[in-house]
Amino acid sequence: MDAAPAIQTLLDELGRLPGIGPKSAQRIAYWLLNADRETALRLSDAIVQVKDTVHFCSVCFNYAQDDQCEICASTKRDHRVICVVSEPQDIPPIERTATFFGTYHVLGGALSPMDGIGPDDLHIAELMARLASDEVTEVLLATNPNVEGETTASYLARLIKPLGIKVTRLASGMPVGGDLEFIDEVTLARAIESRRVL
Amino acid sequence: MDAAPAIQTLLDELGRLPGIGPKSAQRIAYWLLNADRETALRLSDAIVQVKDTVHFCSVCFNYAQDDQCEICASTKRDHRVICVVSEPQDIPPIERTATFFGTYHVLGGALSPMDGIGPDDLHIAELMARLASDEVTEVLLATNPNVEGETTASYLARLIKPLGIKVTRLASGMPVGGDLEFIDEVTLARAIESRRVL
Repeated sequence: MDAAPAIQTLLDELGRLPGIGPKSAQRIAYWLLNADRETALRLSDAIVQVKDTVHFCSVCFNYAQDDQCEICASTKRDHRVICVVSEPQDIPPIERTATFFGTYHVLGGALSPMDGIGPDDLHIAELMARLASDEVTEVLLATNPNVEGETTASYLARLIKPLGIKVTRLASGMPVGGDLEFIDEVTLARAIESRRVL
Repeated sequence: MDAAPAIQTLLDELGRLPGIGPKSAQRIAYWLLNADRETALRLSDAIVQVKDTVHFCSVCFNYAQDDQCEICASTKRDHRVICVVSEPQDIPPIERTATFFGTYHVLGGALSPMDGIGPDDLHIAELMARLASDEVTEVLLATNPNVEGETTASYLARLIKPLGIKVTRLASGMPVGGDLEFIDEVTLARAIESRRVL
C-alpha cells in the first residue's frame, strides 16, 4: 500500500533533487510532515522566491536579484580584474577563499565539441564587449581543470592576449593536504612542471 | 560577499532539512536555480499540498488525506490484526516487506519517563477503544527495539493481554546478512535466547 498521494508526490519531487536518494527523500518528507506548517512553508516560499526574483546579472551572468549582481554593483570590488568561470555555482567557493577581490564573468558552460557547445553558446561575446569598454588589466581564467575547461581557457587566452590584457590561469598541482602516494599522475605531472623555486 | 538574499534564504531553509549540510544545500539550491520554473515549483507545490491536505487518520493516527488513511479504509486488509508503531514513518518499511496485511495504530511516540512522556501522551486510550469495539484477534507490538520501545511494548502487553487478545512482538536477533564478528553483544545475546529449533 502506497503512502497518501500527496506524500508520494512530495517523495517523488524530493527524489529528483541531486544527491537525494529514496531514503533521504523519505527522511525529509516525514520531517516536513512533522514540522509545523510555518517551518515547512518557509522552504516552499524560498523556492518560489528564488524562481520569481533571481535572474542573470546583466553584466556578468551571475545570479542576481537586481539588474546587476551584488559583486558587479559593489564599489569595493576591483573592476579591473575579471575572473572567468563556467557556472554561477563556481563563484561562492572562490568568494569563500577571500583571496579574490575583482569581478566575475560567467560563461554559462565550457567549450565542448563533443556536446556541440561552441563559442557562440557561451557568454564570450559579452566578455569581449566588457574588455573593450572597461579598463580591464587582468583576466583570471578559472574554468575547471578538465578537458572542456582547459580548452575554454586556451581559446579565451588566444582571444584576449592580443588586447594587451594580462591573462592568468588558476594554478594546478597537489591539493593542500594531499598525499603523493595517492595523487593521480596527471596532477602530479602538472605539479612537477609547475614547480616553484623556494 | 554573500549570495543574492533569495538564494541565501533558500540555502538556509534547505540547510534545516535532516541530513542536508551546507554543501548539499548549495548543490540543491543551484539545481533549483538551473531547473526550469515548472520543475522547481512542483517541489514547492508538493510541500504546500502536504501541509494543506495531510492530517492524522481518525482511526490509527497514520498520515491520511481523507478521514481515514488508505490502510484503515481498505477492505483488503485484515482489520482483526493491529500492528502498533511509534511513528507514521515506521509504517512504510513494514509495508515494503509485504508480509503484514493487518492494520496499524500509531502511538505518536514511545514511553520515556526521562523525557516526561507517559501513557497519556500517546494514543493508547484510542488503541484500547479500538480493541474494545473491533473484533481484534492479534496486536503486533512493533515499537523500536530500544529502551523506550521495549518499555512501551511491555506496558501495552500488560494492558492488552487481560482482554484475551494475542499480543506479539517483532523478533530480535541477527540482522540478515549480519556478521557474528561485528554484531553487538546485546543483539547476539537476544539471538541466542530466541534461538529456533531447526
